[in-house]
Amino acid sequence: MSPKKKVTIQDIALEANVSISTVSRVLNNGAAVADEKKEAVFKAVDKLGYQPNVFAQGLASGQSKTIGVLTPYISSPFYGEIMRGIIEGLEGSAYLALFSEAFWSIEREQAVIQNLMARRIDGLIVLGGESSAESLLEIDNQIPLIVISRSVADLLDRCLRINDFEGAYNATKYLIDFGHRRIVHITGLLSHQDTNDRLAGYKQALQDSGIQIDDNLIIEGDFSEKSGLLAVQSLLMRGLTFSAIFAANDQVAYGARLGLFRQNLRVPDDISIIGFDDQPASTYIIPPLTTVRFPAVEMGQVAARAILDLLKGKSFTPPTFKTELVIRDSVGRYR
Amino acid sequence: MSPKKKVTIQDIALEANVSISTVSRVLNNGAAVADEKKEAVFKAVDKLGYQPNVFAQGLASGQSKTIGVLTPYISSPFYGEIMRGIIEGLEGSAYLALFSEAFWSIEREQAVIQNLMARRIDGLIVLGGESSAESLLEIDNQIPLIVISRSVADLLDRCLRINDFEGAYNATKYLIDFGHRRIVHITGLLSHQDTNDRLAGYKQALQDSGIQIDDNLIIEGDFSEKSGLLAVQSLLMRGLTFSAIFAANDQVAYGARLGLFRQNLRVPDDISIIGFDDQPASTYIIPPLTTVRFPAVEMGQVAARAILDLLKGKSFTPPTFKTELVIRDSVGRYR
Repeated sequence: MSPKKKVTIQDIALEANVSISTVSRVLNNGAAVADEKKEAVFKAVDKLGYQPNVFAQGLASGQSKTIGVLTPYISSPFYGEIMRGIIEGLEGSAYLALFSEAFWSIEREQAVIQNLMARRIDGLIVLGGESSAESLLEIDNQIPLIVISRSVADLLDRCLRINDFEGAYNATKYLIDFGHRRIVHITGLLSHQDTNDRLAGYKQALQDSGIQIDDNLIIEGDFSEKSGLLAVQSLLMRGLTFSAIFAANDQVAYGARLGLFRQNLRVPDDISIIGFDDQPASTYIIPPLTTVRFPAVEMGQVAARAILDLLKGKSFTPPTFKTELVIRDSVGRYR
Repeated sequence: MSPKKKVTIQDIALEANVSISTVSRVLNNGAAVADEKKEAVFKAVDKLGYQPNVFAQGLASGQSKTIGVLTPYISSPFYGEIMRGIIEGLEGSAYLALFSEAFWSIEREQAVIQNLMARRIDGLIVLGGESSAESLLEIDNQIPLIVISRSVADLLDRCLRINDFEGAYNATKYLIDFGHRRIVHITGLLSHQDTNDRLAGYKQALQDSGIQIDDNLIIEGDFSEKSGLLAVQSLLMRGLTFSAIFAANDQVAYGARLGLFRQNLRVPDDISIIGFDDQPASTYIIPPLTTVRFPAVEMGQVAARAILDLLKGKSFTPPTFKTELVIRDSVGRYR
């Protein structure tokens, strides 16, 4: 059951006894072609069961009607929401989003971008990622580019970001307002800018409330559930006292929650937790997680529409994305 | 800042003063081309900054080195794991996976498949989906096709499935072994075969243990967290007694868990819960969820390798995928 050979534009050309470029012109309603040749091409298309071929259309028009999307993880719940937004943003347009993965590796990222560019994508949306500013600038010179959740120098008008500092500041302030003073922060990957902005927001909120920063309460994580679990285990093992945790994202909060559960510590009765992102699962965990909403779907929608606008030659100015506290059940009064 | 026009193979042909098919032959190391013409093409490629063009390569070889993947939801944690497996399965090959979404709509699915086929994908992997057996058979006649998590008549040797009946039977039996007799089952979407197989497994396990089936304890869900929450709310509102829940998947279990939490019912002290799938999040929820493992990553890997084998003209026979009980903390003895 080996697959049938696909019919190519070359087969059509051979069958119709015309040149490949004639076939291409006919199929794409391009430059004038003699009626006789046109008919021969259509006959060959019918006979061979040829399918509309984006390759050929790409050759003729330079357009593939495809927006490439590069995500660090195809199965990430966080990036998943942004991808959902991108699909929603392209609804009603002629463009299809094609997603590919590059798991935070520069080499892999470059290879995938090259691959997508070679497929003549019409625009590229990069979620996070590690590619150099230079390589992103080079892409932006060729096709519309939007970068989500990362600031790239000289490309700030193509970067969609939230105010991580502000979100973290408000989360920490919320815990302080509930009487907490020994507040742990479990960070994301320290190589990421959002991690450092969130850390800075946490510190500033403590300082503004006259609470001294205790470096023992700042634990390095990596945005994963496991890093949240390990952070709590390490804190408890070292016998450090704390009454609240501000996690760099919801996934870290889930892991931290499990670490507390394993030591029979109750949330929020014994320890309060606040996350960041407001992932869909955070509504359903026990107790439902108080967190900072990251407008992931909205950001994906804006990115998609920005690409469509740029393709039409319109200008684009990134809007300001607001974070907001989503109050659920994981934060209680200090006692 | 409008994008530069992309260099096409036609531009190269014009610049090198040769035909498009000559350019294509040169770039793809195809049929013999005079050295003189070859040189002219390479010169033009250099001068215009032409990038390796999969369109042109596709024209020449009929191959795009792309495996299309159709997923119902790009942001689904369940399908996310299968997508992860597909990427892993293609590692080390020259093929790139491109993902697209079709949210359980036949029209959308057909449009996306047409779109991918027009991009001359070399193989297609369909996760679930609603497309008719006829349309899938038609694709299978053109390019290698693998269907995951669905049985398609006349295409069984291209379908990867688990034994849903067996998994559900074992989950229900596990609850019965812990002394439970009033066991709720919250189903998935009744239009899906796995839903019905799991329901049948649940019923058979009860019957084999001499427990009468109570239709009041079978609640229709749709694989979503929300349907689990609503099911539990409905059960409690109707005052039905039950001591355990077998949820059609983990997401339904998360929602059911929240419904119990809101009524101060403890898991597993008051009510036991068992899920299906073993999603990554199930390790981290409170309490960690006992569930039936669905080998999602493995299935994705097998699908990718099957496509690669079929492309090489090798045969493929679907392996048997085993489900297994993953015992965590959400099931307790009936009391």
